[in-house]
Amino acid sequence: MKFKKVLSVGIAESKLEPRYWGRIDGLCEKRVMLSEGSSEIKKQLSDADCLLINPFVFKVDKSLIDAAPSLKFICVLATGYGVVDCAYAATKGIAVCNIPGYATESIAELAIAVLLEYARDIEHAKQMARAGNYSDTPRFPVYELKGKKIGVIGAGRIGIRVAEIASAFGSEVFYWSRNKKADLESKGARHREVEKLLSECEVISLHLALNKDTEMFLNEKRIGKIRHNSVLVNLSPNELVDFNALEKRLAKGNLIYIADHTDEMAPEQIEQLSKYEGFVPYPPIGYQTIEATSSKQEIFVGNMENFLKGTPTNKVN
Amino acid sequence: MKFKKVLSVGIAESKLEPRYWGRIDGLCEKRVMLSEGSSEIKKQLSDADCLLINPFVFKVDKSLIDAAPSLKFICVLATGYGVVDCAYAATKGIAVCNIPGYATESIAELAIAVLLEYARDIEHAKQMARAGNYSDTPRFPVYELKGKKIGVIGAGRIGIRVAEIASAFGSEVFYWSRNKKADLESKGARHREVEKLLSECEVISLHLALNKDTEMFLNEKRIGKIRHNSVLVNLSPNELVDFNALEKRLAKGNLIYIADHTDEMAPEQIEQLSKYEGFVPYPPIGYQTIEATSSKQEIFVGNMENFLKGTPTNKVN
Repeated sequence: MKFKKVLSVGIAESKLEPRYWGRIDGLCEKRVMLSEGSSEIKKQLSDADCLLINPFVFKVDKSLIDAAPSLKFICVLATGYGVVDCAYAATKGIAVCNIPGYATESIAELAIAVLLEYARDIEHAKQMARAGNYSDTPRFPVYELKGKKIGVIGAGRIGIRVAEIASAFGSEVFYWSRNKKADLESKGARHREVEKLLSECEVISLHLALNKDTEMFLNEKRIGKIRHNSVLVNLSPNELVDFNALEKRLAKGNLIYIADHTDEMAPEQIEQLSKYEGFVPYPPIGYQTIEATSSKQEIFVGNMENFLKGTPTNKVN
Repeated sequence: MKFKKVLSVGIAESKLEPRYWGRIDGLCEKRVMLSEGSSEIKKQLSDADCLLINPFVFKVDKSLIDAAPSLKFICVLATGYGVVDCAYAATKGIAVCNIPGYATESIAELAIAVLLEYARDIEHAKQMARAGNYSDTPRFPVYELKGKKIGVIGAGRIGIRVAEIASAFGSEVFYWSRNKKADLESKGARHREVEKLLSECEVISLHLALNKDTEMFLNEKRIGKIRHNSVLVNLSPNELVDFNALEKRLAKGNLIYIADHTDEMAPEQIEQLSKYEGFVPYPPIGYQTIEATSSKQEIFVGNMENFLKGTPTNKVN
């Protein structure tokens, strides 16, 4: 079985390695690539049975689905698929698949990496050594993760891995999630109510997906509860955190905020936070590993192959 | 029981917090502090029953021991005590105590910190973000520790902790030590002969104490065996590694060498290595944590207290 026509929208050639495009070509009789702004999209959709999309630049709403009477399958090149009207697609018998978990380890490892970077003042140390200062002392009292109270908010795949790794460092691990996780508890992590976790932990790592329930999860009240001089690591969407309350707290000088979704912040927001020493910005490097990049493409093309075999994987509707 | 006279040599006032000096004063009738170059040392030793030394600046040889007929106890403010003639001290009934293991976690955590810093190109990412580049890509293909072959050389306290933490990251952990360690093997680490470990592992972390058997442990032949593009982390003494062979290998551009004992390298050695991109120098920050600093002082004064109680701790002779 092959697709008759695969239409890809908003996916630059460079987003997949040639060998993956090659595998896609082996799965279809014809492939058409359009940019997200193309005027031809609806026309090309009219006889496409497979649609590949970059959800960061392209939305699939009812009208688009109505324009695609032959469509059987939408494959999203990302974890998030909120831009696709999945329920409507389901009524038309169209399966939607996404790419979950491909960067779990990369993001969990980055959370520990940026935490250790801060805890040991690594960047400063490197710079001093290169400047010929080989007897450097750190700019503030640096510390071990062992024995530190680390609070993980969100116990999905990434949060669980952060908790597990922190345990290996000998940290005292707490977590919050709506439901207790027996698996995590058996590894020594203890469940805490959010406010309690925030006020007790010396390190807090945020690993929640963004949805209506989690938007502004760290609201003004909760941000006020965060323990003095805690380190808050946020490799999750900025929308989880009340920006104004965060800025107020950073202005007090008793919070360290390490975040990597800087590409999704408004320039004036970055500028505002950058006034404070406690703001430690990173580019969005959570997904930037060989392993995550290759796993993402592998799962994407795998989703297409498995759909054709009649055993769809990562179907979300 | 108290000491009649405590003589400290080469230990700056600032090396111990006031509260520890206070505790020491509670343990003796009299305390005399001399710098390592003082001409009074032998005179002051003549009636001292306790000698505290900074072994990095002061040596205790036979002639010094002979000048101290009342001496009962030498307390070394470091882990290494090679500068004290311990055997001779023993013949005079003088106990020598050191401070082992106070920085085990700090050093093990630093090994992981500098490894993650490299693996994710963290310093570069931070600099890019501060320069307003929020869509940064790393300068080389960055990677996860999960699944990487990590070889730990030396299975003392520090090596064991590095192996345990690396296991939690999902790395494939190998180790070399003279004897197999059942405890490590039960945690999934596998013993390898040195040459095999060097040629197989993508990351090598060196955790050997320096002695006659380990000097130049990584000799020219072994350095030649190291896998292409491996990362060699050395938070141990430089003397473990053949400098010329290391330089030759760095010149080939297929080794990353991360080291923190830069304060003990000759300036011209640093200059030579700094020509190569693969050399990543740090100041000696392995011991620089609140925890290690406090633990070191605690054990030092504890050694004095326990000696007086007749239950000496950390006696090395």
